[in-house]
Amino acid sequence: MMEYPLLLKTILYHAKTVYPKKEIVSRDFSGMFRYNYGTLYKRVCRLANALKKLDIQPGDKVASFAWNNHRHLELYFAVPSYGAVLNTVNIRLFREHLIHCINFAENKVIFIDEDLIPAIEDIREKLTTIKAYVIMTDKPELPQTTLAPVYSYEELIKDEPDDYQFPYLDEWSPAIMAYTTATTGFPKGVVYTHRGLYLLSLSLLAGEYGTTERDVVMPIVPMFHVNAWCRPFADTFVGAKQVLPGSRPQPQDLCELIHRERITIAAGVPTIWMGILNHVLQNPNKYDFSCIRYLVSGGAAMPAKLTEEYEKKLGVTLLQGYGQTETSPVTLMCYPKSYLEDLPEPEKYQLRAKTGLLIPGLEMKIINDKGKEVKHDGKEMGELLFKGPWVIKEYYKDPEKTKESFIDGWFRTGDIVTIDEEGYVQVMDRTKDLIKSGGEWISSVDLENHLMGHPAVAEAAVIGIHHEKWQERPLACVVLKPEARGKVSKEELKDFLRGKVASWWLPDDIIFINEIPKTSVGKFSKRVLRQLYQEGKLQ
Amino acid sequence: MMEYPLLLKTILYHAKTVYPKKEIVSRDFSGMFRYNYGTLYKRVCRLANALKKLDIQPGDKVASFAWNNHRHLELYFAVPSYGAVLNTVNIRLFREHLIHCINFAENKVIFIDEDLIPAIEDIREKLTTIKAYVIMTDKPELPQTTLAPVYSYEELIKDEPDDYQFPYLDEWSPAIMAYTTATTGFPKGVVYTHRGLYLLSLSLLAGEYGTTERDVVMPIVPMFHVNAWCRPFADTFVGAKQVLPGSRPQPQDLCELIHRERITIAAGVPTIWMGILNHVLQNPNKYDFSCIRYLVSGGAAMPAKLTEEYEKKLGVTLLQGYGQTETSPVTLMCYPKSYLEDLPEPEKYQLRAKTGLLIPGLEMKIINDKGKEVKHDGKEMGELLFKGPWVIKEYYKDPEKTKESFIDGWFRTGDIVTIDEEGYVQVMDRTKDLIKSGGEWISSVDLENHLMGHPAVAEAAVIGIHHEKWQERPLACVVLKPEARGKVSKEELKDFLRGKVASWWLPDDIIFINEIPKTSVGKFSKRVLRQLYQEGKLQ
Repeated sequence: MMEYPLLLKTILYHAKTVYPKKEIVSRDFSGMFRYNYGTLYKRVCRLANALKKLDIQPGDKVASFAWNNHRHLELYFAVPSYGAVLNTVNIRLFREHLIHCINFAENKVIFIDEDLIPAIEDIREKLTTIKAYVIMTDKPELPQTTLAPVYSYEELIKDEPDDYQFPYLDEWSPAIMAYTTATTGFPKGVVYTHRGLYLLSLSLLAGEYGTTERDVVMPIVPMFHVNAWCRPFADTFVGAKQVLPGSRPQPQDLCELIHRERITIAAGVPTIWMGILNHVLQNPNKYDFSCIRYLVSGGAAMPAKLTEEYEKKLGVTLLQGYGQTETSPVTLMCYPKSYLEDLPEPEKYQLRAKTGLLIPGLEMKIINDKGKEVKHDGKEMGELLFKGPWVIKEYYKDPEKTKESFIDGWFRTGDIVTIDEEGYVQVMDRTKDLIKSGGEWISSVDLENHLMGHPAVAEAAVIGIHHEKWQERPLACVVLKPEARGKVSKEELKDFLRGKVASWWLPDDIIFINEIPKTSVGKFSKRVLRQLYQEGKLQ
Repeated sequence: MMEYPLLLKTILYHAKTVYPKKEIVSRDFSGMFRYNYGTLYKRVCRLANALKKLDIQPGDKVASFAWNNHRHLELYFAVPSYGAVLNTVNIRLFREHLIHCINFAENKVIFIDEDLIPAIEDIREKLTTIKAYVIMTDKPELPQTTLAPVYSYEELIKDEPDDYQFPYLDEWSPAIMAYTTATTGFPKGVVYTHRGLYLLSLSLLAGEYGTTERDVVMPIVPMFHVNAWCRPFADTFVGAKQVLPGSRPQPQDLCELIHRERITIAAGVPTIWMGILNHVLQNPNKYDFSCIRYLVSGGAAMPAKLTEEYEKKLGVTLLQGYGQTETSPVTLMCYPKSYLEDLPEPEKYQLRAKTGLLIPGLEMKIINDKGKEVKHDGKEMGELLFKGPWVIKEYYKDPEKTKESFIDGWFRTGDIVTIDEEGYVQVMDRTKDLIKSGGEWISSVDLENHLMGHPAVAEAAVIGIHHEKWQERPLACVVLKPEARGKVSKEELKDFLRGKVASWWLPDDIIFINEIPKTSVGKFSKRVLRQLYQEGKLQ
C-alpha cells in the first residue's frame, strides 16, 4: 500500500480543517488586508488552477519577487503543492546576481510585487527562461510596464474553482529553491524538499518556544530569503494568527503592528531589533508591548547587549536563533533551560548571548583542526557541522562547491564555535573571519560584541589584517552613535576592552567610520571592509 | 548521498545531548529510583551491547512484559535502535491470548518484571520461540523460578561498554510490535515503524498542549499497551522530567506522585481518573495539585461529567484524547481553541466532552452509509477514517482482517462520529455498538454519558437487544454508587433522561448490576454484557 508522504499540502490541509476561522493579516499596498485560513485555502486552490492555465508542469520553477504578504504566502503553498518549485528570489541582490539567479534556476514565470516591477524591467532583456510576468497588486488595473506577456494575479485567479486535488507527491520532491548570500562569486543554489521543510516546521513547534494556536506571529525576516526561517509553514500548521508586514516596513510600522495586532512572537535580524529598540526609546509610552511572548533574532550574531537592553528597557524577551541557508535554516535556538532561568547577572545575560541549543531532529559535531571532537568546556574551539532531515546534501548544479562544504554527509557551517557542558553552542567566528595571530585564534565576533557593549558604540566590525611577524592582527572598525562622535578616543575603547579579552587580542588599531558596509541581507560585509583596507580607504 | 532517516535513536540522542541532567523518576520495586537522560543513554548503550551477546539479530523480536519503569524505557529505546523489534506484551491478556501473542510474534527473548514472573512461568511450556528469559529486578539475586535459561537484567548490562554505534536503519524498519485488544478471536498484531513513532512524537509536541522541557510528565497509561500513547518518545524528545509510576499503582500512589514530584501532565484511561477523583475527594487537603497543567484521558470515551468535576472540584484541567492501536495511537485531542475558551456553561463543558480536533499531520474523512462525507454540522453521523504517517497499513500476517479494516489507504476506525463547524469530532458510538432502531441510529455512548451525569450513577453501559418490530432497542445496565443502592428507581433514571435525548432513544429497560464487565485494558466489555443478556443472566 502507498505510504503517506510528508508534504507541505498537509500543513495547509490541517489549518483549513481545524482552524478555518483563524486570521491572516497582511500589510498590503492599500492598507491592512485580512482573511482567514479557510479563505487562504480557497485562494491557494484557485492559484493552483491558474498555474495549470499558465502551463506550469510538475518540476517547473516559478519565481517570486515579493515582500512578506498574503499573496506570497499563497505562492508558498500553491506552487510546491501543485508539484512545481517556488524560487524565492532575493529582491536585494545586485543586478548581475539577480540575472544569474533567475536564469540559473530556469524560472518559467515570475510573480512580482507591484513596487518591485522596476528591478525586473531593468533586467528583462537578460532573462532567458521567463515566459510570463505576473504582477501582484491590490489595484484593479495593472500599472504601465515594459514586461510582457504580463498578467494580474487577482485577474488570473478570480474565476478559477476554489478547490484543487493536490497530488500526493514524492516527499523528496523539490518544494522551494533559494540562493545563499554570495561573499565571492555568484550565489549558490539550494533546493529544499517537501520533507525537509515539513520536518523543520514540526521541530520549530516542539517545546516551550514552539508556536501555538494562541500565538500571533509576525515574520519580519523576509520570505524572499531562506523561507522566512520556515515560520510561514510552522505557524500555519498550528493555526496561529499570522501578521505579514508587507513592503519596506520601517521600525514605526513594525511597532504599530506589534501594538495593534497584539503580536506574541516576531522574528527578524539584529539590525531590525536595534532599529525597533531605538524607535521605542525615542517614543516612550507610545506602544504597549506586553503582548509579546518572545522575539527571535537570527541571520547574524546578536550583540550580547541587545537581549539585556530588550529585557531591561522594554521588558521583552529577545532570543537568539541560528542557522544557514543550507540548513533551511534553523539549527540552534538559545533559550534558558528551566533550571537555568534564575541565574544571577551577569551569567543570565551571558547565557542569553550564547548562540543556542540544538533543535530536535538534527545531529551536530564540532571538530578542531585535528579533526577531533572538541571538549564540552565552553573553551575549546572547533568547526560546527550538521546533518539531519533539513540539511541540504548539495548545491544546485555545483559539484565543486558541494565538495568544499559537505563531508561524509555532514554540512560544514564554516563557523568556529565552542560548546559548554549544558550543550550551549557559541559561535566565535567564521572560519574565514577568525584572526590567526601567532598560531593562535582570535575571535573577531567576540571583540565586536565587547566593543558594541560600550555605550558610545553603535556598530563594530573587526577584521584580520596582514602582519609581518604575527601573520594577522585585529583591526576594529567602529561606528560611534551620532551623539558620541568626536568625543570618544581609540584609547578609551582599548581601555574598555582591557580585562574583557586577553591582552594579545587587543586590536592593533581602531578606525572610526560612518557606516559598516552590509551584504544584501543586512549582515556586516567584512569582505568589503578588507577590500577597502587594502585599497587604503580605511583610516 | 545518504538521506537522513527518521529514527528513534535521534530522540534519545537529542535528550542526552541537550538535556543530559534532566531527571527520570521510576517507582521500582524497592522505592523511588532516579537518574537522568545522560545515564539513561549510557544504560541504553549497555543494553544494546547485551542484546548482541544474547545473539539478537537485526529484525528479531524481543518481548517486554513489564510496568512503566526505567528498565522498560531503556527497552523502548535500545531494542528498536539496535535494529530489533520490541514486542510490548500486554500483561493483562487472558492466558490463551498471551501464549498466542508471544508465539505469533516469534519473540526470541522476553524481559519480565519480577512480580510478573508467575504469569510467564504458567505458560512457559507453550512458548515455542523464546530462547532466553531476562528478569528485571532491583535485587542482587534472581528469585527462584522455573524459567530457563534465565538472566538478570542488571547482571547482563553491568559490565558492558556504555557507548554503542546505533546503526542508521531504514526509517521504515519495524520498531515496536503490539496487539489490538481482541473483542472476538485472537488479538491482531500491529507493527509500528521508526518513522511513524517519530512523527507522532513530533505531532504530540506541537502546539499549546505539547510537552516542554519545563514539564513533569507521568504516563499512567501502560507502556505494555500502544506505546503508552507515544508519551515516552515525545517527552524524551524535549527533555521533560519523566515520572514512571511502576507496578500496580493505586490511586493513592498516583496522587502522591503528582503531589511530590510536581507532575504537570499525566495521561491515563477514564477509570484511572475516576479513581483518583474519588480518592482525592475522600482525602481533602491531603494533596496539592496546583502543579498540574493538564491531564489527558483516553482509551475509552470520557464521561461528560468527569472533566467538569475535575475542574470544579479539583481546579484541574482534564482533556480528552482519542486514538486506536492501529493509529499508534493518537489521532484527536480535545482542547478549546483560544476564541472558544470563555464559553458560558453548559457550552463550555459540552465542548470539553467532545472527542477532539485532528492532531497535525493526519488526514481524516467521515463518511455516511452512502459513502459520502458528512456535513460539518455536529449532527450527521458517519464512520471516521484516517490516513497519515502513523496509521498502520495492515495487520501483521492477517490479510483477511486487513481487508476488513483498510480501504484505499484509509483505516476504518469503526467509530460513528459527528463533526461540527469548528472541526470538533464527537464519537457517537462504535459501529457495532450503535443501536439500529427502526432504520435510525441510537448512540449507546450518548445514553451512557447522560446516565453517568446522574449523581447516583457510578457506571452505565447501554447495549442494543433484539426487538421484533424495531430490530434493536436500547437496554441500559447501571451500577449505582454504594450509597444510592436501593434508593433510586428505573423510572427516576428514565425521567432524568427525558428531554436530554429524543423520546424514542429512551432505553426500554434499565437493569441495576454490581459491576460492568471490563476488557483487559479496562474498557466496558459490551460483548460480555450482550452474552450475559443472551444467557439470561442480566435482569
